[in-house]
Amino acid sequence: MSKVKAVRAAFVGIIAALVFMSGCARTAEAPVTPQAAQIASGSEQTKQITKTPKYLFVFIGDGMSYVQVNAAKVYRGNNTSGEVATGNLNFTAFPVAGVATTHDATSFCPDSASTATSISCGVKTHSGVIGMEVDKTTVAESITEQLSREKGMKIGIVSSVTINHATPAAFYAHVSSRNDYYDIAMQMAESGFDYFAGGTISQAEGKDGQTNAFDVLQSKGYTIADTPEEIRALSAGSGKVYAVSPVLQDSGAMPYALDRTEDQLSLADFVKKGIELLDNENGFFLMCESGKVDWACHANDAMSAIHDVVDFEESIQAALDFAASHPDETLILVTGDHETGGMTIGYAATGYDTAFSILDRQNMSYVAFDSFIARLKDENPNLALEDVLPVIKANFGLMSASDPDANIPANAPFVMTPMEYAKFAAAFDESMKASANRTQNEETALLYGGYDPLSVTLTHIINNKAGIGWTSYAHTGTPVPIYATGAGAEIFSGAYDNTDIYKKLAQVAGL
Amino acid sequence: MSKVKAVRAAFVGIIAALVFMSGCARTAEAPVTPQAAQIASGSEQTKQITKTPKYLFVFIGDGMSYVQVNAAKVYRGNNTSGEVATGNLNFTAFPVAGVATTHDATSFCPDSASTATSISCGVKTHSGVIGMEVDKTTVAESITEQLSREKGMKIGIVSSVTINHATPAAFYAHVSSRNDYYDIAMQMAESGFDYFAGGTISQAEGKDGQTNAFDVLQSKGYTIADTPEEIRALSAGSGKVYAVSPVLQDSGAMPYALDRTEDQLSLADFVKKGIELLDNENGFFLMCESGKVDWACHANDAMSAIHDVVDFEESIQAALDFAASHPDETLILVTGDHETGGMTIGYAATGYDTAFSILDRQNMSYVAFDSFIARLKDENPNLALEDVLPVIKANFGLMSASDPDANIPANAPFVMTPMEYAKFAAAFDESMKASANRTQNEETALLYGGYDPLSVTLTHIINNKAGIGWTSYAHTGTPVPIYATGAGAEIFSGAYDNTDIYKKLAQVAGL
Repeated sequence: MSKVKAVRAAFVGIIAALVFMSGCARTAEAPVTPQAAQIASGSEQTKQITKTPKYLFVFIGDGMSYVQVNAAKVYRGNNTSGEVATGNLNFTAFPVAGVATTHDATSFCPDSASTATSISCGVKTHSGVIGMEVDKTTVAESITEQLSREKGMKIGIVSSVTINHATPAAFYAHVSSRNDYYDIAMQMAESGFDYFAGGTISQAEGKDGQTNAFDVLQSKGYTIADTPEEIRALSAGSGKVYAVSPVLQDSGAMPYALDRTEDQLSLADFVKKGIELLDNENGFFLMCESGKVDWACHANDAMSAIHDVVDFEESIQAALDFAASHPDETLILVTGDHETGGMTIGYAATGYDTAFSILDRQNMSYVAFDSFIARLKDENPNLALEDVLPVIKANFGLMSASDPDANIPANAPFVMTPMEYAKFAAAFDESMKASANRTQNEETALLYGGYDPLSVTLTHIINNKAGIGWTSYAHTGTPVPIYATGAGAEIFSGAYDNTDIYKKLAQVAGL
Repeated sequence: MSKVKAVRAAFVGIIAALVFMSGCARTAEAPVTPQAAQIASGSEQTKQITKTPKYLFVFIGDGMSYVQVNAAKVYRGNNTSGEVATGNLNFTAFPVAGVATTHDATSFCPDSASTATSISCGVKTHSGVIGMEVDKTTVAESITEQLSREKGMKIGIVSSVTINHATPAAFYAHVSSRNDYYDIAMQMAESGFDYFAGGTISQAEGKDGQTNAFDVLQSKGYTIADTPEEIRALSAGSGKVYAVSPVLQDSGAMPYALDRTEDQLSLADFVKKGIELLDNENGFFLMCESGKVDWACHANDAMSAIHDVVDFEESIQAALDFAASHPDETLILVTGDHETGGMTIGYAATGYDTAFSILDRQNMSYVAFDSFIARLKDENPNLALEDVLPVIKANFGLMSASDPDANIPANAPFVMTPMEYAKFAAAFDESMKASANRTQNEETALLYGGYDPLSVTLTHIINNKAGIGWTSYAHTGTPVPIYATGAGAEIFSGAYDNTDIYKKLAQVAGL
């Protein structure tokens, strides 16, 4: 029995205890039905699994923890009613909730590689490692690999970022470094999984002499669909598919929901198409990651993060719509892999007040704004503060106290305070410098975190005015929520470790 | 039917729908047994209550949300093993978890008066209002008042802060302003509740001509025990009791766990004594608040907050020990009323690193340190920075880069960086000024939040070095966890509003 199997076997309770003796825990039929299995859930009490799902959905909001979720609820409620009321998100109404710790073998502020590995494979490993145990050598098999082989389930992997990025990769790849993008893409081609969709492939071209990963995927039988027409034309008979978003924004990822136009495909579109392609009598497992909640939170851009959380709800709705037709056979989990940014609803300068409606004055993501400013700089290398003020006003709704607009009172909430204006002006000066000439010290590291000084200062100002604070440009150690509904959902209640998400999934699926 | 009754009746599902017609929802026997009642839990699914508890414990960590809890786990795990591993807390192993939104009628960053009212009475109200509805006039009856009257249960109210402070008050008082301390104390005397314990009474003396609240309590039959001997001598036959901590620290509250000496009574001692006095054949309800997690987080003092969370576990253990003898009849809930401080495990300057072991170099709370510095200032009004450096080193373990201790490398983690030292020196200068002469501007408001500039800067520096960030000196809108175990615990799973905590308690208790 391999080490992987032995470690896993320790967790599957009665079933494993019986099967272990036969030395074939992975392949033997469990002598106890999952329905009757009593499993330990990080507590002394035991829980009964009432139903075994045939269709499993796991939605992972990268960087999405309690505050990201609640900020979306506050934003929606506040903007709908104008009152102090939270709006609804379909997944926060799920009947079962859990909470998971996220630390990995290296850090209490873990990364997506290790945390996604904990969720997909049930092991703790080093930051940066995908699908391998803490020794960085032993392969940890993923829930998706097991369900594919043992249950004949079809597997779909959807992400708004590149499909060989850490989170999606953890469901099919095994590498000691998340940066081995080409190797991961090769494992994607070898996975035999049925449906990949969302962003493109990072470093698909590989190094000199390597075959482009898309060509390899095609040689392995994958249909690559990367136009709206091709994607819409995909149907149940299309075979193995990789649907690549026709519109890409930063680092091969789909656009932020905030920047997306109506004619562009959304993450929900890729989930719906996935359900259509994956549905079969052996069932399926679909993992969908909203990857840019994390990216927005790294950059401390609350508006972009909130819009991606709200957008995520529509992907989840696609699963709920499917579950409505298969209520006793579908399990839907929604969770995060870790928190990003140390986001809080509440900020020192605003105290007990919040003003989320001011966020609506921001009409593009920091990424889109950076591109916009770069174009302006190209057009005018001597861009001055005065040239940029109207741009700030148009895109962030922030104004200087000396703005000539007579209709605006000087104490309006979107007028920068003297301290804010000084921060903005200093950031503009830094931003206009060539990257190599920018000030690098303790203070600028805290102020800008390696982001473009202008846009990160503007998101800080508008966020702080809204009553949103940030403590970091990295991930934090905040536990993450698990929301569960459907067949077997009940075992996801309680407080546990993120490795238990895998264990509970394996248990509920009868592995 | 009163407005209170009507509002509540809307939530109790089948039972209320039937009883509503008779116009006597409060007093009628429910026609459906609680055991069989299906209740809505903020979701479309319904949940079955399997057991009705006779003994109910509600533990409220004021200002305690996910990060405060996980920081205690990280602190304990890290200090025990030296590895990246979390330690255990008894309540995070409870089998059921829920998550509650906390906004009140006024704010997404609510206060303890409104949030405790939501928990105790099931209504949303204004910040600052206790036990009254949003009109600030209509009395909202508390779960404790109902259980006392309708079930004959004994009631105990324990807090580490004053017993007429917002959270404990919400279980027996009804006032439009939490600052009406004397009025609240009078309602405490009138409550007829069986056991009060912990801090003293805020403003017990009242105004000119008013009778001291302690005298009123005695006239209403309460035994006031405020020495260790008197408290230890209390027993089941003692009648109505108010046990006041013999040692008080700030604002009439018990000392921080970090400052408490071994001979002093702890919050757990008051819970144990409460169980002893309250146990009777009709059952009891005991609410225990750890009130200074909030106070420490307001001041951004992680070490004091963490120690009070760890200390809270011992109070909860007293309930678990009792439950071990009454496993089918005891329900234990642990929750927070709101988050305080915007605390995060992770900070911009430390990125993915944390170093919680550095927290052990802080050996007293900010309150104790403020008192200590005040004494030094009294002794030497011309206290200089050089005089204070050894004090900082002794009590926070923080050193200047020019410290003469030859054994310490300059890059040791507890040596202040140039930016940190500059912040410390500026804070020292501010701190030495008379309060009225201190700088008051946007920047100092962010830096010090109204706290003593020196101590709050020192906790910021040591927290940041440990990898802990803060965004506020006030409360935030982070949802709070609910951990539940025992009879009826299962209905506390899921994501819901804090008013649902009351509703679920009422349901599970058969009200």
